Amino acid sequence: MRSANCGCSLTTSGPPDDVLIDLIVKEVRTALRSPVADRSATRLTLPSSSAYPTIPLGVSNRHIHLTVTTFHRLFGEGVAFEEMRPLYQPGEFASKHTLTIVGPKLRSIPGVRILGPLRTYDQVEVSLTDAVFLGIDPPVANSGTLSEAAPLTLVGPNGSVYLEQCAIVASRHIHMTNADAAQLGVSDGDLCKVRVAGVKSTVFENVLIRTNNSWRLQMHLDTDDANAANVRDESVVEFLGKM
Amino acid sequence: MRSANCGCSLTTSGPPDDVLIDLIVKEVRTALRSPVADRSATRLTLPSSSAYPTIPLGVSNRHIHLTVTTFHRLFGEGVAFEEMRPLYQPGEFASKHTLTIVGPKLRSIPGVRILGPLRTYDQVEVSLTDAVFLGIDPPVANSGTLSEAAPLTLVGPNGSVYLEQCAIVASRHIHMTNADAAQLGVSDGDLCKVRVAGVKSTVFENVLIRTNNSWRLQMHLDTDDANAANVRDESVVEFLGKM
Repeated sequence: MRSANCGCSLTTSGPPDDVLIDLIVKEVRTALRSPVADRSATRLTLPSSSAYPTIPLGVSNRHIHLTVTTFHRLFGEGVAFEEMRPLYQPGEFASKHTLTIVGPKLRSIPGVRILGPLRTYDQVEVSLTDAVFLGIDPPVANSGTLSEAAPLTLVGPNGSVYLEQCAIVASRHIHMTNADAAQLGVSDGDLCKVRVAGVKSTVFENVLIRTNNSWRLQMHLDTDDANAANVRDESVVEFLGKM
Repeated sequence: MRSANCGCSLTTSGPPDDVLIDLIVKEVRTALRSPVADRSATRLTLPSSSAYPTIPLGVSNRHIHLTVTTFHRLFGEGVAFEEMRPLYQPGEFASKHTLTIVGPKLRSIPGVRILGPLRTYDQVEVSLTDAVFLGIDPPVANSGTLSEAAPLTLVGPNGSVYLEQCAIVASRHIHMTNADAAQLGVSDGDLCKVRVAGVKSTVFENVLIRTNNSWRLQMHLDTDDANAANVRDESVVEFLGKM
């Protein structure tokens, strides 16, 4: 666990500093909370008021992908895998099914949703905050790359499985078509930088470009990244270009 | 709560991409895990192999500051406020005392440590991840700036208090002496940028410079920022300069 090592009081700063800081914080928070022009954008937005193109953001909470075999082991042989609601990417959906995940500290996180369709592998995508809580050390990896993934126990209503290599922290990535990529001057596999504006403005590096002509343009950040930048789902990021 | 909105499988990528991605990920992880030359630095390190000065990093877990009045109300009149261990900044310490904090969703976080010395205000510093869990919407603010702080209930062994304005997400900041500031070309109150290298390399903007000649040079990030950048306590950050 992280240690509590911050004695951050500003006991020696005088009133003028406090007033100035209050003003700065207030200004920045007001700016952050004002409507963003491109908030509803669902496609690439080329530079206008901003110096950079903007891309819609999706924040990924912890979630699970399962094979049909593992699904039936956890939920029962006769149980159908059912959709709850579609996701932003065509064909992807949140299922009606959730599991409890348990790590080596024997702490559990309940209600972790299985996303569909069912896959050819079992995978749990967690944030590093989750990993510290659970007591695992997962790699930062792309979905489906499980050679160094961490172990977890998954508990369902019909049984449990211990998966030796299932947990990863998903790499930051952007889904786009080849046409989007051409417009942005990038190719599949490139590593790029994006910026989130605001009071906790942050530049995320090593963002992987993934192209597929069936995808909608969308940046994916996990909850640690999103919370660090104080940004909500359905916002936008600025695309700063290749690393 | 954040929604599970990521259907991030790379089902359409062929083997060549996967091999390449594996190689990239392995290289970057190896680089990340190799010893950092300046890891043990406790003072400003001027450019050598890196193009930028490096600054020691301290990661701040959630913690509490209390007045003597509130401390006695929660722990009992005759109870002494006792030090457990010193912190990095001179005079600051982790106390032996912890509380449970409870938000409006009636979810609680136990074992939140009180840092000393006792203050002239009651304050709870949380991450945005904590805030989402607790169901509060705290401002990003500097320690001691509580005009927009969120409410929480604090529960101790001798009673509880409901504090209308106590919870903040602490601003990113760097403690330094005036000599350090002069060497870095900055002044108290400046907003700067720092970078954390690694597989999740990240540039943190709006980092406040705080100067006091009794302080040791140290950057403070909360656990969301640190986990987003996949960086541990006792690492270093690169100082990129003013915003």
